[in-house]
Amino acid sequence: MTPPQRNPEDRPVGALLAPDILALLEEAPGDIPVETEEIHPADLADVAELLERDQLQQFLSALGPARAADVLEYLDEELRTEFLEAITPRQAAELVTQMTPDDRADTLEEIDEEHVEEILSEIPAEARQETEKLLAYEPDTAGGLMTTEVVSVSADMTVEAALENVRAVARSGRKEAMHAIYTTDEQGRVVGVMSLRELLAAPAGAKITDIAWTEVVSVSPRADREEVATMIANYDIVAVPVVSESGHLMGVITVDDVIDAMQEEQTEDVQKLGGMEALDEPYSTISFWRMIKKRAVWLSALFLGEMLTATALGAYQKEIDKQTVLALFLPLIISSGGNSGSQGTSLLIRALALREVTLRDWWRVAGREVATGLTLGVILAVIGFTRIELWQWMSDHGWSIGSFHLGHNYDLSTIRTATVDGAFRDVDVITAGQHHLLALTVGLSLLGVVMFGTLVGSMLPFAFRRLGFDPASASAPFIATFVDVTGLIIYFNVALHILLR
Amino acid sequence: MTPPQRNPEDRPVGALLAPDILALLEEAPGDIPVETEEIHPADLADVAELLERDQLQQFLSALGPARAADVLEYLDEELRTEFLEAITPRQAAELVTQMTPDDRADTLEEIDEEHVEEILSEIPAEARQETEKLLAYEPDTAGGLMTTEVVSVSADMTVEAALENVRAVARSGRKEAMHAIYTTDEQGRVVGVMSLRELLAAPAGAKITDIAWTEVVSVSPRADREEVATMIANYDIVAVPVVSESGHLMGVITVDDVIDAMQEEQTEDVQKLGGMEALDEPYSTISFWRMIKKRAVWLSALFLGEMLTATALGAYQKEIDKQTVLALFLPLIISSGGNSGSQGTSLLIRALALREVTLRDWWRVAGREVATGLTLGVILAVIGFTRIELWQWMSDHGWSIGSFHLGHNYDLSTIRTATVDGAFRDVDVITAGQHHLLALTVGLSLLGVVMFGTLVGSMLPFAFRRLGFDPASASAPFIATFVDVTGLIIYFNVALHILLR
Repeated sequence: MTPPQRNPEDRPVGALLAPDILALLEEAPGDIPVETEEIHPADLADVAELLERDQLQQFLSALGPARAADVLEYLDEELRTEFLEAITPRQAAELVTQMTPDDRADTLEEIDEEHVEEILSEIPAEARQETEKLLAYEPDTAGGLMTTEVVSVSADMTVEAALENVRAVARSGRKEAMHAIYTTDEQGRVVGVMSLRELLAAPAGAKITDIAWTEVVSVSPRADREEVATMIANYDIVAVPVVSESGHLMGVITVDDVIDAMQEEQTEDVQKLGGMEALDEPYSTISFWRMIKKRAVWLSALFLGEMLTATALGAYQKEIDKQTVLALFLPLIISSGGNSGSQGTSLLIRALALREVTLRDWWRVAGREVATGLTLGVILAVIGFTRIELWQWMSDHGWSIGSFHLGHNYDLSTIRTATVDGAFRDVDVITAGQHHLLALTVGLSLLGVVMFGTLVGSMLPFAFRRLGFDPASASAPFIATFVDVTGLIIYFNVALHILLR
Repeated sequence: MTPPQRNPEDRPVGALLAPDILALLEEAPGDIPVETEEIHPADLADVAELLERDQLQQFLSALGPARAADVLEYLDEELRTEFLEAITPRQAAELVTQMTPDDRADTLEEIDEEHVEEILSEIPAEARQETEKLLAYEPDTAGGLMTTEVVSVSADMTVEAALENVRAVARSGRKEAMHAIYTTDEQGRVVGVMSLRELLAAPAGAKITDIAWTEVVSVSPRADREEVATMIANYDIVAVPVVSESGHLMGVITVDDVIDAMQEEQTEDVQKLGGMEALDEPYSTISFWRMIKKRAVWLSALFLGEMLTATALGAYQKEIDKQTVLALFLPLIISSGGNSGSQGTSLLIRALALREVTLRDWWRVAGREVATGLTLGVILAVIGFTRIELWQWMSDHGWSIGSFHLGHNYDLSTIRTATVDGAFRDVDVITAGQHHLLALTVGLSLLGVVMFGTLVGSMLPFAFRRLGFDPASASAPFIATFVDVTGLIIYFNVALHILLR
C-alpha cells in the first residue's frame, strides 16, 4: 500500500488517469487492482466514463467485484443502467450484491423491471429480501434514502462490551453505517444515540445508558427527502435514524445521501423555476432530443397560455386604434407585473422548502405581500408617472430630447411634437392636457399590476403545495404568463376610465 | 441522565418546551441545566428565540457558558449578534471562548468591529490568535468555513498508539472534529487519511501507514464554498481537510458547515433567479422595510431597463398606426423570447454551479444552444402560424368562433370580419390575403426571438462568471428585460419586410 506520493493540489482527475489505465488494460490488466487501490472510486468512475463499452467491462472485471461495485456507485446513472442491463443477470447480481443496501436499491430502481427480476433472483436470499423492502419505498422519501445496515447496541451493555461489538462489526468488512451508534431496549425500540467519539471517550466501566443521549432525532420512513435534509441541516448531525411507528429502528440515512438529494432537489428547483421540466440528467450528457422535449413541452404550454394576451388585446383593439400611444407602454406595464410576481414566487418557494413558512401561514403571508405589493407598486407608479411628465416637460421647454441617452426623438409621449418623416393622423395626437392623463393611466396601472403580480406570485406556491404539486413549478415564466393577461386587462380598464373617458 | 422517555415521533419543539422553561426560570433556575441536558441545543435555541431579552440572558446564564455557547451556535444570527453586543465584552468573551473556532469566527464576523476588538481582548491568547487567523478569510471560502482543531497522528505510529491518542483527545473535552483522522510526515505535511472506523477495525500491531489512504482529497484555503460542496458531494466524505500550498494541514471543513453553506447558497440563487437581491435573512423574520429595499432596487432597475421598450416602440408607432393588428401579438412574441431565455439561463446557472460545464465549454454550449433555439423556435413558429391560419379559416368558413373556449369574436386576426359594435377604420382592415402575411410575420418573428432568447439566456451566465459576478444574477426577469427590447425590434423589422412591404 505505498503508491507514489502526490501533492494534494494535483489530485488525480479522471481525464488525467485515463491514459495510464488504458495502457494497463492493454499490457497488464492484472496490475490494475494494486495500481488503483489508493485512488478514490469517484475518480475511477470518472475514468470509466471515458472508456468504450468493452473497455469498461474489462476494466471493471479487472478491478474485482467489490471495487467495481464501489466504482459503479459513482458512475453516471444512465451509463450504469445501460451497463448492468447489457451484462448477464449473474454478473450484474455479483456486482450489486457488493453494494450497500441503499445504493443497491437506488441502482436497481433505474433498471427496467424485467432485468431487475432476473438480477434479484441471482442475489443471496437475505440481501434480496432487504432490497425488495427498500425498493417498495418511493425514492424521494426517507425509506428510499435509508440503508438498512446500521449498528445498534443494547442499552444495558458496558462501554467496553459495546466497543468490542463495534470493532467486530468494523472488522467484519460489512458496510454498516457507523456515523452514529444507536441503543435499543429489550423490545428492540430505539432509546438512545451516541457518536463513535463519545463511545471512545467514555470512562472505563461506564454503562451505555450513562453516555447515550436519550433524545433521538429521527424520521418516519414516509418523510419527504426535503424534510430529512432540513432536519440534518438544523441539528448538524451526520446521520438520521429511520424509525417505525412502533419505535423500531428500520435503517439510517447518512449525510452523503442527503447531500446528493439536496443537490438533485436544487437542480430540479432551479430548472423548474426557469420554466421547464427538470432534466433529471446532467446538462453535459443529456441527449439533444431529450433536452428539447423537456424544454419544448413547457415552452409550448406557456406559449399557448400567452396566446390569451392576443385574444384579450383583440377586445381592446378599438381603444388601441383611438390611442396607439397605449400600445407603447404595454410591454413595460405587463412585464412589471411578471417581475414582481417572480420575486414573490421565488421568495415563497424557498421559504416553503426551508419550512420557514407552512400552509398555515397562508393568510399572514398574503397580508404581508399585499402591503409589499402596494409599496412596490407605489414606487414603480411614481417612477412611471415622473418619466412621462418629465419627458413632456422637457419637450415643452424646447430641450433637445435627442441628446439624452435614454430618450430620443421617437420617444413616446412626445412623438407628436417631434418631427419625424411620414404623416401623422391628427386624431391620434396627444394634446397638451392629455399627457397628464396618460401619465396617470400608466401610474395607476402599474400600481394595480404590481399589486396583483406580487399577490399571485406569493400565493401560487402555497396553492401548488396545497394541491400536492411542487411549489417550484410556480416558475417566473408561469407567473408572467398568468399575470400578463390580467395586467393588460387592468391597463386598458384604467385607460378607459382616465385617458379615453 | 434519565429524563422522561419520549416517543421519537413527538420530538421536543421550541414552542412546546417554552412554557416549561419559563416556569423553571421563575421557580427554580438552578434546575435548568439538569432538566434540559438531554435536549438538543437546536431545540433550546428555538425556545430561546421565543423569550424576552432579559429572560434570554437569565436562561443562558442558568445553562452555564459551555451549554449556552452550544445554544448560541443555533440561535437566529441577528438575535445572537444583538445579544452579544448588549452584554459586557467579558461575558461575551466567556461565551464565545466555549465555541468551536469556526463557529466563534462566524459569530464574531457578524458583530460590529469595535465590539469584536473588545471581546477578543478578553479571550485567552491562543484562542484569540486562532480566531484572528480565521477572521482574515472571506466567510464564503474554505478558510472561512474551516475549524482549526483537527486530529492528526504521525504516520509512523502503531494503530494502538494512535487510538490511545485519539481517545485522549476525545476525553479532553476539546471540540476537535473527529470525522476523519489525518496522518502527517516528519515535516507535518498531510500524507494520509483514515476514518475512525478504519482505525477501530485495524488488526492489533498494524502500523498507521498500513491502513491510511494516501490519496487525500483536500482544498486550498482560498477555494470557493461551492467548490467545497461539490467535492464533499462527489466523494461522499464527511470532512475535507484544508491544506496550505506547502502541504500542511490548516484545518478541516465538516459536512454540517457545508450543508449550511449549500442551503444558504441555494436560497441566494433562487432569490436572485427571481430577480431580486438575496435577502440574507429568513423570510419569516426579516423586517418589512429591509425586504422592500431588497426587492425594490432590482424591480426599479428592471423597470428602468424595460422603459427602453417604450422608447423602441416609439420608433415603430407609424407601423402600429398602419396595422394595429401588430400590437396584439406583441406580448406573445416578446414573452416567448423571455421564456426561452429563462430556460437557457437556469440550465446553465445550475450546470456551472455543479461544475458540469466550465468557462472553457463556452463555444460548445453556444453551438448546442443555437441548435436548441432553432428547434424550439421552429416549434413555436409552427404553432403561432397554424393558430392564425386556423382561426382565419374557421372564420372564412362561417364557424362560430365564439363557441370555442380560447377564441371569441374579438379574436385578432378575424376581428375585421366579425361584427363588433363601434366603427372600424377601413384602412386597418386585414384583407383576405393579408392574414397569410400576418401568420408569416408572427411565425418568423417567433423563430428569431426564440433563437435570440435561448442564446442570450445560455451565454449570460458564462459572461457573468467571466466578469466575476454570480451567474445566478442572470435571472429570468433580467433576461426577459434584456430580450424584450430586441424581441420587438426583430418583430417590427420582420413586419416591415413582410406584412408592411
